[in-house]
Amino acid sequence: MQPFASHIDFASGHVKPADVLQRRLSQLRHLYADSAAVEAILSSEGDRLIYEVHNVPLPEDAGHVLHCTTIIFPGTVGGECHMTKGHYHARRDTGEVYVGLAGEGEVLMQLESGAFKHLPLRPGVAAYIPPFWGHRTVNTGSEPFIFFSAWPGDAGHDYAAIEQHGFAMRVLQGEAGVTFVPNPAFTAR
Amino acid sequence: MQPFASHIDFASGHVKPADVLQRRLSQLRHLYADSAAVEAILSSEGDRLIYEVHNVPLPEDAGHVLHCTTIIFPGTVGGECHMTKGHYHARRDTGEVYVGLAGEGEVLMQLESGAFKHLPLRPGVAAYIPPFWGHRTVNTGSEPFIFFSAWPGDAGHDYAAIEQHGFAMRVLQGEAGVTFVPNPAFTAR
Repeated sequence: MQPFASHIDFASGHVKPADVLQRRLSQLRHLYADSAAVEAILSSEGDRLIYEVHNVPLPEDAGHVLHCTTIIFPGTVGGECHMTKGHYHARRDTGEVYVGLAGEGEVLMQLESGAFKHLPLRPGVAAYIPPFWGHRTVNTGSEPFIFFSAWPGDAGHDYAAIEQHGFAMRVLQGEAGVTFVPNPAFTAR
Repeated sequence: MQPFASHIDFASGHVKPADVLQRRLSQLRHLYADSAAVEAILSSEGDRLIYEVHNVPLPEDAGHVLHCTTIIFPGTVGGECHMTKGHYHARRDTGEVYVGLAGEGEVLMQLESGAFKHLPLRPGVAAYIPPFWGHRTVNTGSEPFIFFSAWPGDAGHDYAAIEQHGFAMRVLQGEAGVTFVPNPAFTAR
């Protein structure tokens, strides 16, 4: 393979060249506890764009270093901060590094046994997600929350384990600021 | 392992916490073609700091994503731009991604068979170094050249192959600007 460059706009999170994935509320209904709030938004304002991933095209093979940006737009759904789907790596024994570029958010991480940890991500913060930690990000601010990620080419994505067992904590935005609330639907194993 | 965060100052390249490695001219004598210029600098101005690496401490094991910043200070030695030692990965089939944070430089890349490629690195440019490409960076500007790197935990570093066979091109800074000149001492294999 020949070396190549991509261009990242740190302010917008846009990457060129990149494969752009858009995730809208209708695809993410199950993430939010308040399903009435989800349906109310869909009928009143349409299919809200929650986040985008700008992924640099590379083979998903061992030895490569995959990388992308993620842009989570600000907002809440039934009080819950906009969030990504979240996943474990299919190969659980692989890590990932995030570098904050713009805005304010949190990296939520959990082990399948139930341990939970979160790290604030701001411009210049490098958050390390060690092997075995599932991860989801949420926008806790009022501007787009943008970060860069790099992970091993053979890590893969397991979204199903999160869909089935949930995430240990929910992140709410209210008059008292950002609060973390245990998710009663989460099941450790 | 528990998740943790490091703080990167994009303007200075400093990372906390990090292991900081300093490379001075006396340790890099062999990189520059003009050994008289090297010795003249050492005796007139002392042991010039050429570059620093701020490395986030992590196990060098498969599955981890190692990351650091590199700061190459501006300047020339006998007309050659300040540069890193350069290396292949010990596991040749592993890649690396660089993201420019400040200043101006070039990523020089070569295959052991002799193919050569270079990419300019500026703030926001993500340069992908595919598996098998040896890599060295040079500061072609007048300010510190700073970039972020991420690479596989089991990649390892092979500096000896560069010391023995050299790098295919030298990068000179002169009145005509930056020029690339083939290195007659380079040996392909």
